[in-house]
Amino acid sequence: MSKQIYDRVALIGLGLIASSMFWAIKRAGLVGEVTGYARSSETRDTARRIGLCDRVCDSAAEAAEGSDLVVLCVPVGAMESVMKEIAPVLKPGATISDVGSVKRHVIETVQPHIPEGVHFVPAHPLAGTEHSGPEAGFAELYDNRWCLLVPVENSDPKAVAALRGLWEGMGANVEEMEADHHDLVLAVTSHAPHLIAYTMVGVADDLRRVTDSEVIKYSAAGFRDFTRIAASDPTMWRDVFLTNKDATLEILGRFTEELFALQRAIRTGDGDHLFDYFTHTRAIRRGIIEAGQDTDAPNFGRERAKP
Amino acid sequence: MSKQIYDRVALIGLGLIASSMFWAIKRAGLVGEVTGYARSSETRDTARRIGLCDRVCDSAAEAAEGSDLVVLCVPVGAMESVMKEIAPVLKPGATISDVGSVKRHVIETVQPHIPEGVHFVPAHPLAGTEHSGPEAGFAELYDNRWCLLVPVENSDPKAVAALRGLWEGMGANVEEMEADHHDLVLAVTSHAPHLIAYTMVGVADDLRRVTDSEVIKYSAAGFRDFTRIAASDPTMWRDVFLTNKDATLEILGRFTEELFALQRAIRTGDGDHLFDYFTHTRAIRRGIIEAGQDTDAPNFGRERAKP
Ligand SMILES: NC(=O)c1ccc[n+]([C@@H]2O[C@H](COP(=O)([O-])OP(=O)(O)OC[C@H]3O[C@@H](n4cnc5c(N)ncnc54)[C@H](OP(=O)(O)O)[C@@H]3O)[C@@H](O)[C@H]2O)c1
Ligand SMILES: NC(=O)c1ccc[n+]([C@@H]2O[C@H](COP(=O)([O-])OP(=O)(O)OC[C@H]3O[C@@H](n4cnc5c(N)ncnc54)[C@H](OP(=O)(O)O)[C@@H]3O)[C@@H](O)[C@H]2O)c1
Repeated sequence: MSKQIYDRVALIGLGLIASSMFWAIKRAGLVGEVTGYARSSETRDTARRIGLCDRVCDSAAEAAEGSDLVVLCVPVGAMESVMKEIAPVLKPGATISDVGSVKRHVIETVQPHIPEGVHFVPAHPLAGTEHSGPEAGFAELYDNRWCLLVPVENSDPKAVAALRGLWEGMGANVEEMEADHHDLVLAVTSHAPHLIAYTMVGVADDLRRVTDSEVIKYSAAGFRDFTRIAASDPTMWRDVFLTNKDATLEILGRFTEELFALQRAIRTGDGDHLFDYFTHTRAIRRGIIEAGQDTDAPNFGRERAKP
Repeated sequence: MSKQIYDRVALIGLGLIASSMFWAIKRAGLVGEVTGYARSSETRDTARRIGLCDRVCDSAAEAAEGSDLVVLCVPVGAMESVMKEIAPVLKPGATISDVGSVKRHVIETVQPHIPEGVHFVPAHPLAGTEHSGPEAGFAELYDNRWCLLVPVENSDPKAVAALRGLWEGMGANVEEMEADHHDLVLAVTSHAPHLIAYTMVGVADDLRRVTDSEVIKYSAAGFRDFTRIAASDPTMWRDVFLTNKDATLEILGRFTEELFALQRAIRTGDGDHLFDYFTHTRAIRRGIIEAGQDTDAPNFGRERAKP
């Protein structure tokens, strides 16, 4: 039984997500030939040097031409222009997918450019690290993580099934979700937390009475987890917030409301309110560990793994 | 050359911090005999079963009597009552220290009960995990972490030097800091981030349109780091916020101000502001890694360490 799902796949954008896809595809032998393209010649050179993609092309159109699946792996704000560029060369029956962290906006901007006879199946792997670029990827990134498929109206079931097979072959668990719901869920589990972490790190940096070197030295207790999140790629995150505006602002509004209530409890010395709130949030952590979505090792296991 | 620094040390409270101290003390042979006491018979039984402390006593006074150093390892709100209980049995020349996460409040409530001829040297090791209790400790917890000594007026230099030696012997880097500055620095690097994480996890749990199981399943991207922080002990954190009220509220005020500015940038589509802000915060992360206070491995190294 051959595991090959597509003869030819093109990855447009060669950063963390695309490079991890490539290594996962190779690990399982899911594709005949993988072509790739990145905007800068620097990234393309790096890709050629480290063997990322079977063939690195000098234009998106060249990479996409003749491919059975083209995956847009660029920041959300760049998807439309890439789609416009490759639209003329797509072969009939090909599938376009993407890995963008926001789905409604990608659908609204990319779908109008999909040629007749080409399928469109948006997707979003819920996996990543704070690192980016072509050398950040590794084959295990998607193992046991979720990949959400967000089929549009009239998405071809066979195209959806093939893409599902690809993500499963790369190690992911696949589910389907509606675009607006996706954007709300991600606003809660990813977008709002990222903005909050960026904000807190910015505040610390900005505080005159505590020096940066103190912040850095004494970061162990809580803050350094925020700094990891706030080290993520600025372009990617700018695009996420600009394109998932409504859901992100809704969640931040709820967050601020709750934060004010807790600040009030601190100010008035309402220890019971604080204690109850903190007891409650523990249960969610337990659930995440039981669902296999994080390690129970103290500090994510990093303390004992010191060099 | 003997490494022994004290003949007898008493640990009052046998949770994460005290148990890690015990194992670190034993690893380096820093103390002749370590006695211990915890409030519940359950914790004392566990301590006896796992060999935590050379002698587990049934009262704080019994553990403290005859000790050269007594370390208060209970929640900040419980320090005063423990101090009152042990004051009558302390031997002249003994040192009282603590590990509380807040220092001004501990000094204000504990110092009045220190008997004549007994030294008082408050301290705070900046190390911990989200786990608590007598079985959570391990000898390596303080390795290469900071321990802040916060001597009070007229702290005896010899008592300070001995305590420094103990913490260095347990693997920590030691610095001295003034109490109010300590409380402000910790509000930035630890207390405010914890409250923010608790808040975000509470908001996610509370949101009707996204189910808890979705939050748990799709937590990979950012949110699960918050849930780890928000899994910390509710009693300890209630006490921290109630006793470091002013500094915490000050930092949360600054945080809210900044968050509003970023929300506004999202609302008005000011991508440049977001991009600049996110670029800036990356530098802090770089500093923390260069200072050896965190790992540079993606996701704290947990992705590749999966079972
Ligand atoms: N990182 C995560 O945690 C994560 C998780 C899930 C989904 N995603 C989504 O995955 C996508 C890629 O993220 P990533 O982390 O892989 O980013 P990355 O490592 O920064 O890589 C982005 C790639 O896109 C290329 N690119 C950027 N702008 C372009 C443009 N205007 N035209 C053509 N190519 C362009 C870049 O080329 P150069 O190298 O030449 O600049 C680079 O190869 C984003 O949509 C993001 O929302 C990310
Ligand atoms: N966890 C951290 O990350 C961290 C880091 C630095 C400093 N600290 C500080 O270290 C101290 C201890 O924290 P921990 O994490 O070790 O806590 P923990 O694991 O929850 O242990 C607390 C210990 O204190 C005992 N205790 C609680 N209330 C008491 C009372 N009223 N009288 C007598 N004993 C009492 C408990 O006894 P039972 O087991 O019988 O309830 C338990 O043995 C706190 O002041 C905290 O602020 C914590």
